[in-house]
Amino acid sequence: MRRILIQLDTDAHPSAFDRVVAVDAGVDELFSYAGVTPNDVESLVHGAIFTRGPADLKNTAIFIGGSDVAAGEALLERVNATFFGPMRVSVMIDSNGSNTTAAAAVLRASRHVEFSGLDALVLAGTGPVGQRAAQLLAKRGANVRLASRSLERAESACAAIKAKVGSDAKLTARETSSSATVEAASDGVALIIAGGAAGVQLLADDQWPSGEALKVAIDLNAVPPVGLAGVEPMDKAVERHGTLCYGAIGVGGTKMKIHKAAIGRLFDSNDQILDTEAIYRIGEELD
Amino acid sequence: MRRILIQLDTDAHPSAFDRVVAVDAGVDELFSYAGVTPNDVESLVHGAIFTRGPADLKNTAIFIGGSDVAAGEALLERVNATFFGPMRVSVMIDSNGSNTTAAAAVLRASRHVEFSGLDALVLAGTGPVGQRAAQLLAKRGANVRLASRSLERAESACAAIKAKVGSDAKLTARETSSSATVEAASDGVALIIAGGAAGVQLLADDQWPSGEALKVAIDLNAVPPVGLAGVEPMDKAVERHGTLCYGAIGVGGTKMKIHKAAIGRLFDSNDQILDTEAIYRIGEELD
Amino acid sequence: MRRILIQLDTDAHPSAFDRVVAVDAGVDELFSYAGVTPNDVESLVHGAIFTRGPADLKNTAIFIGGSDVAAGEALLERVNATFFGPMRVSVMIDSNGSNTTAAAAVLRASRHVEFSGLDALVLAGTGPVGQRAAQLLAKRGANVRLASRSLERAESACAAIKAKVGSDAKLTARETSSSATVEAASDGVALIIAGGAAGVQLLADDQWPSGEALKVAIDLNAVPPVGLAGVEPMDKAVERHGTLCYGAIGVGGTKMKIHKAAIGRLFDSNDQILDTEAIYRIGEELD
Repeated sequence: MRRILIQLDTDAHPSAFDRVVAVDAGVDELFSYAGVTPNDVESLVHGAIFTRGPADLKNTAIFIGGSDVAAGEALLERVNATFFGPMRVSVMIDSNGSNTTAAAAVLRASRHVEFSGLDALVLAGTGPVGQRAAQLLAKRGANVRLASRSLERAESACAAIKAKVGSDAKLTARETSSSATVEAASDGVALIIAGGAAGVQLLADDQWPSGEALKVAIDLNAVPPVGLAGVEPMDKAVERHGTLCYGAIGVGGTKMKIHKAAIGRLFDSNDQILDTEAIYRIGEELD
Repeated sequence: MRRILIQLDTDAHPSAFDRVVAVDAGVDELFSYAGVTPNDVESLVHGAIFTRGPADLKNTAIFIGGSDVAAGEALLERVNATFFGPMRVSVMIDSNGSNTTAAAAVLRASRHVEFSGLDALVLAGTGPVGQRAAQLLAKRGANVRLASRSLERAESACAAIKAKVGSDAKLTARETSSSATVEAASDGVALIIAGGAAGVQLLADDQWPSGEALKVAIDLNAVPPVGLAGVEPMDKAVERHGTLCYGAIGVGGTKMKIHKAAIGRLFDSNDQILDTEAIYRIGEELD
Repeated sequence: MRRILIQLDTDAHPSAFDRVVAVDAGVDELFSYAGVTPNDVESLVHGAIFTRGPADLKNTAIFIGGSDVAAGEALLERVNATFFGPMRVSVMIDSNGSNTTAAAAVLRASRHVEFSGLDALVLAGTGPVGQRAAQLLAKRGANVRLASRSLERAESACAAIKAKVGSDAKLTARETSSSATVEAASDGVALIIAGGAAGVQLLADDQWPSGEALKVAIDLNAVPPVGLAGVEPMDKAVERHGTLCYGAIGVGGTKMKIHKAAIGRLFDSNDQILDTEAIYRIGEELD
């Protein structure tokens, strides 16, 4: 029985990136849908669950993607609401690559530091990748400073993460709109992850924390100017100022491995929801 | 040479249901087109008939689907008008599953009753499925009462069916807008097929015909309230009040088998038109 | 590793013709995009170049098609601008079949005449096919008369071709809006290629050049009235009035072979641009 992946993409064209990865992950047939809205979901899910017998449903799966993460999450919610009892297929969500990128960044960091009790700063922490990186770190016991230019948005992101990983998660909202607040936020942290948008510098040359506390710095923006001044996109555990640095492309190989493995995993059973945490765990098993 | 199925769907997204069935029926390459209008047909058909040599054309076929049956029929007309001489490929039409569903219902009934001379009632007989079920029954010699809330529409449907199966077909239009007319329509029939839309009750508890005439009752609506009060969607020849009952899901397995077999049959030659009658005959051979 | 072809089509539906040919040329996975505009290109190209390692990029390729040749060329320009260094995949452009058709016509002519110094007339020479046929002939040393109803447009097309094949190309613009100018343009030529649109006659019965100079006449319009009066669409080196004649269908087999071979060639390396000249050379190797 051929393995079918139904790609629900919220953009006008289905992501070519996600399609190539699906093919390379061993999907036999890829049904790509573009411009998918919540109202389209029921009929597409019915097509997934009413065509093969219960024992064969693990050979059909759904992938949710597209550049708009909130739109993707709205699809996921609708997909889940359409399933009932054993009539379901496994689903992965990776809108804008946010889950696989966050998982890859945190996974690379885990090679150099222990998260439990670690002081970590996530810059652009309210963005799709930053929020997921913060969630993964908080879940693993780190003291996470989630930074944004707006304190209000940072607080709102912290609350959203606590709702997922538990109210005892150690998350602090930080406002980083000025040099002084950036320096205060980064003071003493052992890990910085910059999950910023393309071409936005989040930490200037003269804002790098002094001292020896900072062990790992990961910048997920590949488009100049990069998010962390001095880090090169190709950096992969390159030491700079005594800190192991990763650039967006340096993390890319790990991201790609996680993405492919997660797609493959979809076909192990028909009842998985591969979101942030599940995707990270798949990455851990690869290491 | 790979077997290509060109799916012409009139909806905004190509049916995932039809795509999975196509894959499971052994199609190698599925070209899915959405939002297809008659004006799009010529170019797509030219792509089908001008790319492979006459001897290889049987490896390309067209499937017409989508929720709007009239729109699908308009495509079929245009597809046929574009073919010429031996330059053609086989075509199947199953908009809204109407042909495979009607064929499955009539086929299940055929296991319990002889159609020739049988008194049969088709409720919601002007809908896509009802009309096709009535056509199949009339073609096989049944005395078909085709019911609708509107006598005018019922008469128009009867005329359309006679134009297909012959003017000697035994079809009577029935208006069933009140309890009294529903009872009159169902009085003495041996078979009832309810081809109604989702969630519309066509026969209430107290409207079930009394007496022993009714042998088989088939309800093709799976969404509560079902069309025939008391019939369960999963019913498959379950006896209730002395009548063998089928629900929508109980007929679903047969429908799926017919659908797959018909897709497979498309590739036997390049000159088939698989519409209501041809699809029913494929079902008969499976039994 | 599966061979992926990314079809960028500028029409509302991706060409079924191009899809069938891609499948028959051995493509494993076809990603078909419709209604593609230059603004869509970057993201799609990134999906092509950032998903597989440099050594594997030759297994991904791009095909640009659709009925609007200028729109296709705008896509090609944007595709090339998105590539950088070794991060690229091979690309073929054949909007409206213009490259493969022109290559097939010129290739058939090459079996009967030597191009160097040959007097050739291209009717409807400003159209997509005519312009490409003129380019191929000029590149091979023919004295090409490029004809149009408008002298201005003919001159503009000549200039565009010279920009591609060199300013020493022997190209003359000819206006052919009247019987007299048509006769003057065709006087003494050994080859006529009519690249006109469907259903437009370019040379009437009484306009055929007298004398024995004309060796080959190729008409690329299959829809009556054909472009060269008297030539039948199926003609394949049929002698009429002492001239070897080809019709659109007579050239079609060669066109199809070139099209398939070019698709196959895309996967030999990741750095090819298959436009008019490269596609013609692939045709030469097939002969």
